[in-house]
Amino acid sequence: MKTDILKMGAAALAALSLSSPAFAAPVAEAAPAVAADAVGGGTAYILNTLLFLIGGFLVMWMAAGFAMLEAGLVRTKNTSTQCLKNIGLYSIAGLMFWVIGYNIAYPSFAEDSLGLIGGFTGIYSMQGVGEADLDTGYSVASDWFFQMVFCATTASIVSGTVAERVKIVPFFIFVTVLTGVIYPVVVSWEWGGGYLDSVHGFSDFAGSTLVHSTGGWAALVGALIIGPRLGRYGPGGQVNVFPGSNIPLATLGTFILWLGWFGFNGASQLAMGTVGDVSDVSKIFVNTNMAAAGGVVTAIILTQLRYKKADVTMALNGALAGLVSITAEPLAPTVGQSILIGAVGGAIVVFTVPLLDKFKIDDVVGAIPVHLFAGIWGTLIVAWTAAPDAGVTFLGQLVGVLLTMVWVSVASAIVWLALKAIMGVRPDEEVETTGLDIHEIGVEAYPGLANQS
Amino acid sequence: MKTDILKMGAAALAALSLSSPAFAAPVAEAAPAVAADAVGGGTAYILNTLLFLIGGFLVMWMAAGFAMLEAGLVRTKNTSTQCLKNIGLYSIAGLMFWVIGYNIAYPSFAEDSLGLIGGFTGIYSMQGVGEADLDTGYSVASDWFFQMVFCATTASIVSGTVAERVKIVPFFIFVTVLTGVIYPVVVSWEWGGGYLDSVHGFSDFAGSTLVHSTGGWAALVGALIIGPRLGRYGPGGQVNVFPGSNIPLATLGTFILWLGWFGFNGASQLAMGTVGDVSDVSKIFVNTNMAAAGGVVTAIILTQLRYKKADVTMALNGALAGLVSITAEPLAPTVGQSILIGAVGGAIVVFTVPLLDKFKIDDVVGAIPVHLFAGIWGTLIVAWTAAPDAGVTFLGQLVGVLLTMVWVSVASAIVWLALKAIMGVRPDEEVETTGLDIHEIGVEAYPGLANQS
Amino acid sequence: MKTDILKMGAAALAALSLSSPAFAAPVAEAAPAVAADAVGGGTAYILNTLLFLIGGFLVMWMAAGFAMLEAGLVRTKNTSTQCLKNIGLYSIAGLMFWVIGYNIAYPSFAEDSLGLIGGFTGIYSMQGVGEADLDTGYSVASDWFFQMVFCATTASIVSGTVAERVKIVPFFIFVTVLTGVIYPVVVSWEWGGGYLDSVHGFSDFAGSTLVHSTGGWAALVGALIIGPRLGRYGPGGQVNVFPGSNIPLATLGTFILWLGWFGFNGASQLAMGTVGDVSDVSKIFVNTNMAAAGGVVTAIILTQLRYKKADVTMALNGALAGLVSITAEPLAPTVGQSILIGAVGGAIVVFTVPLLDKFKIDDVVGAIPVHLFAGIWGTLIVAWTAAPDAGVTFLGQLVGVLLTMVWVSVASAIVWLALKAIMGVRPDEEVETTGLDIHEIGVEAYPGLANQS
Repeated sequence: MKTDILKMGAAALAALSLSSPAFAAPVAEAAPAVAADAVGGGTAYILNTLLFLIGGFLVMWMAAGFAMLEAGLVRTKNTSTQCLKNIGLYSIAGLMFWVIGYNIAYPSFAEDSLGLIGGFTGIYSMQGVGEADLDTGYSVASDWFFQMVFCATTASIVSGTVAERVKIVPFFIFVTVLTGVIYPVVVSWEWGGGYLDSVHGFSDFAGSTLVHSTGGWAALVGALIIGPRLGRYGPGGQVNVFPGSNIPLATLGTFILWLGWFGFNGASQLAMGTVGDVSDVSKIFVNTNMAAAGGVVTAIILTQLRYKKADVTMALNGALAGLVSITAEPLAPTVGQSILIGAVGGAIVVFTVPLLDKFKIDDVVGAIPVHLFAGIWGTLIVAWTAAPDAGVTFLGQLVGVLLTMVWVSVASAIVWLALKAIMGVRPDEEVETTGLDIHEIGVEAYPGLANQS
Repeated sequence: MKTDILKMGAAALAALSLSSPAFAAPVAEAAPAVAADAVGGGTAYILNTLLFLIGGFLVMWMAAGFAMLEAGLVRTKNTSTQCLKNIGLYSIAGLMFWVIGYNIAYPSFAEDSLGLIGGFTGIYSMQGVGEADLDTGYSVASDWFFQMVFCATTASIVSGTVAERVKIVPFFIFVTVLTGVIYPVVVSWEWGGGYLDSVHGFSDFAGSTLVHSTGGWAALVGALIIGPRLGRYGPGGQVNVFPGSNIPLATLGTFILWLGWFGFNGASQLAMGTVGDVSDVSKIFVNTNMAAAGGVVTAIILTQLRYKKADVTMALNGALAGLVSITAEPLAPTVGQSILIGAVGGAIVVFTVPLLDKFKIDDVVGAIPVHLFAGIWGTLIVAWTAAPDAGVTFLGQLVGVLLTMVWVSVASAIVWLALKAIMGVRPDEEVETTGLDIHEIGVEAYPGLANQS
Repeated sequence: MKTDILKMGAAALAALSLSSPAFAAPVAEAAPAVAADAVGGGTAYILNTLLFLIGGFLVMWMAAGFAMLEAGLVRTKNTSTQCLKNIGLYSIAGLMFWVIGYNIAYPSFAEDSLGLIGGFTGIYSMQGVGEADLDTGYSVASDWFFQMVFCATTASIVSGTVAERVKIVPFFIFVTVLTGVIYPVVVSWEWGGGYLDSVHGFSDFAGSTLVHSTGGWAALVGALIIGPRLGRYGPGGQVNVFPGSNIPLATLGTFILWLGWFGFNGASQLAMGTVGDVSDVSKIFVNTNMAAAGGVVTAIILTQLRYKKADVTMALNGALAGLVSITAEPLAPTVGQSILIGAVGGAIVVFTVPLLDKFKIDDVVGAIPVHLFAGIWGTLIVAWTAAPDAGVTFLGQLVGVLLTMVWVSVASAIVWLALKAIMGVRPDEEVETTGLDIHEIGVEAYPGLANQS
């Protein structure tokens, strides 16, 4: 879908600029008001590219958001490890998406040699300044950058769920496969113009399923195979709370993610070289913000009613769930619908976080409710909010959700199980008890401050 | 004023694009150098909208800045509460500004149904792509987004002053009224083209009075009605220092605010679709930065001279005071004037922070000196820096300051007093002593680290 | 070089817009596809300026990155001091670059009175809206803003190395001279069109040498003259590790710097008003990101192999070293080359951090390996990656490196030695042992949390 839109956009641009009387035609009576509003092809190219760059750096910033969120929600003794995992996974994602990922995700672009083959040669290994590029309507490198940071986001989701009990090396190997193969395959089905896009009319504007559910399934399977943290679940269904070590950091992480999401959803419009496109981007900004706001307020109200306390981590996850929920379709809904969609996302978090604990699925940061459950919700509800003539059906959306579930779960399970068999994924009990920071990283998170528990 | 400028800008754009020979006219002898520089109406629309979007996400990011600043300046035992209040107030502000606030602030736009009525229907509840929008010169949704984050800023100011001693529920109710009614009414007088704008020639470019003083008055009245924190003022005028719990976080928050202020002031130019506008935005960036720098250096020098110590929290507040001071007019002053205006702001902070304590007004983060006192200073000094033909007078500025004082103080007092009577605004003494985090939130800020005092 | 590029760009723009048939000429047969892509001079001016503004606020944000990185890597007892130093140095850099720095750096622009003289008069002390500006192709104020934040970066580098043992006042005085004179002189040789640029064909796209090595030499000389922290080096070559006090903050700082670097390198293209320029900016984004990724992965692998632990601070510095390495030429290399260049940067950090300790050079945050050593590496390797016809030679690059070394080292030594003689640069032993926060700042960093060591 993403490429389709791009192609259509490019075609429209070409048509616009070539046929625009103000530019190409000298006839006096042509082109009054309309012509004055026409945007030339070169200008549109620059603005489209700029959208990718701005969106790209905002989504890149989300890597810091995940790092802070997770560093704030793990225990002190595993905080340095979580920091390392996050900067490491972002780096690996970039490398793998270049080596192989992009070419898997966008097979029709593969001949352009964006990846390893060809990547070592030529000054413009990602683009040539010339006619071909202008037909595209944007800089290929800017598009690659924007796509790459999405890939990294997927990996960030996993690291939160399986925190505090996975060794660094197997974790990084899993990330390598996830970002190099598992995620790109899902993308190819839809944004790459494949099966889901062409056969089922599946619609996922910015990735509630493609990015968030993919990360969520990989996280869920990981949590199941790896098992819960030591001492997390006592006998008789008892759940021991391991409180996050730094709530302001988790709050900061959430605000960073919220900010980054304007790029995540907004720049998924993929163009701002026309008046209509930039207006759509603006609408997306508003809807994205309001869905998050709906998620926050809902989570606060529900926890206040249910527990007589307004749990701040629920409020933070409420924001994120609202954001994930609106990601599948942030443009079509009205503002009111967006608030509602986000509010349901927030409610999902409040009700499913305890549910996971019932099944002894240990999700350290609540990433499964936020990214998987709210991601499914957001994907399905598109059947309601999409324009009637868009051809989006509940069934088509469900097929996309299920296909992603099957592929990501099976592929992730194979990788996690292989890693378990070959090298083991969990540290020794003593290491886990003392904390991974000392044993795996050699650097405590807050050595000048008190007891490192 | 803001709408006026927009309307004028739109008119200018329309004139420019329609009359520009390069676009509409085929006459050979027309349009030499000037025509080459003309920016088409469509391109200008995109660029104006982009300014709102970039400015908007930068100001949205200020919500994180306030959260970190306040989380760093309260005591450990109230840190989680402060985080919740900040993400909650930002969410409430967005919802309320949509439900009712915008329509109060900009009555002339009310028929466009930006708020609740109409908001639930139609894909483009905030805009239609067509002629009307092009006349506006920017996407309505982008403007709404930019205005909304200003509204949220106002609420952030209050949360800092009254921290550590207000229960969550009354605080959120106050925020609801502030962002839905109190602040929008002030905006309507000036940016909405009302009394202050039309009668007094009041000038407040980006909101020293409209945003910062409004927040400041609400905070001051709150501090007076709620009273100081337990144990803050001893007998005989003794002031007990409650040091902030996390100085790096407070520093981070200040840097975030500084960054966000480029959007706050820069995008208040409201257009960058002409060479002149984008040059003005650039000038605003420079002046904004230099006023902050002036505030920092002044605060460092003054505290070094006065206390033989360079108090870092004074330096941080010096930056913010410098920023608030330049906000009423960041374009007209020279760089030298900007530094001076910011430096006076920094001095105001150093001298008035102890003054508040003399009157036993307990302002946890120093928001009253920063946002109210420096805001008044910045508003009045516009009479000096504004262009002579702009018609800005000291008296007109003073009227704006006083009118805002009366309205915001009275309205805030009514709300605070009503909340006090109905549900009480302060927690029990035991709760306040133990900390709000445990009782109201149920989540400690740094549970892995030492004594939570 | 920077001004040269600008001048050429402006000339090209002028040529483009004036000669473009679509804009100025009414002849029917003129201007088919090419004309449609032409970007008018006014639009290009706006887009060039916008690049400076976006790049500028991203680099400004790096000041927060350095603050967090350094606050996280010093000991708890000196954290508040480090915060103050960082916000102070950013402010001083802005003031000094305005008072005198810019005019030294860009002597050919000096008559435009960007600095003190003239700065106090006139509304547009930095620009006039008119023909002259359009010839420039961008707003002068936006360029000044972008250049100023580079100046601040140089000072940030120094503060990390000499942390925990320099009094505030002499530190700020050093920063004053560094940002007002020492750094601008280096810039004048190259970006100001001086000796290195005109005689040696020296090439330093975004400042591996001009910014990072300049900061690095000043830091190295500072570390040598000031000496190591008390107790850092024991008898018999023993190195006592003083672990950083807050690893998540250091991680956050690194992510901030990584984000800011897109502005640092990307906006050093100095223009995005043409299709080619914005494509180049995109390529720079990709290469910058991939060099950092290469640095991270290399540092993780090397520390894992060498120490059986994946040292997170090495990974963070690996990212930064990768970024510094690619800064001298982020456009010409292929993606593969960029990864390689960054990877070598990461390796340099892993191997030279212990080396410095051998020579008892106490570099608190590892700024000398990151900014100086990787900066030299990045500068020299341009001879390999630059286009063959660019005239870049290994020898020319070496001359630039050496000249910078001599000037910055000698000038810095004079200033540090003078400060030492006049007022002393180190605090009393008791102060250093107890921590600078209590004595110099009067504000502890984390008073609510445990032992402040």
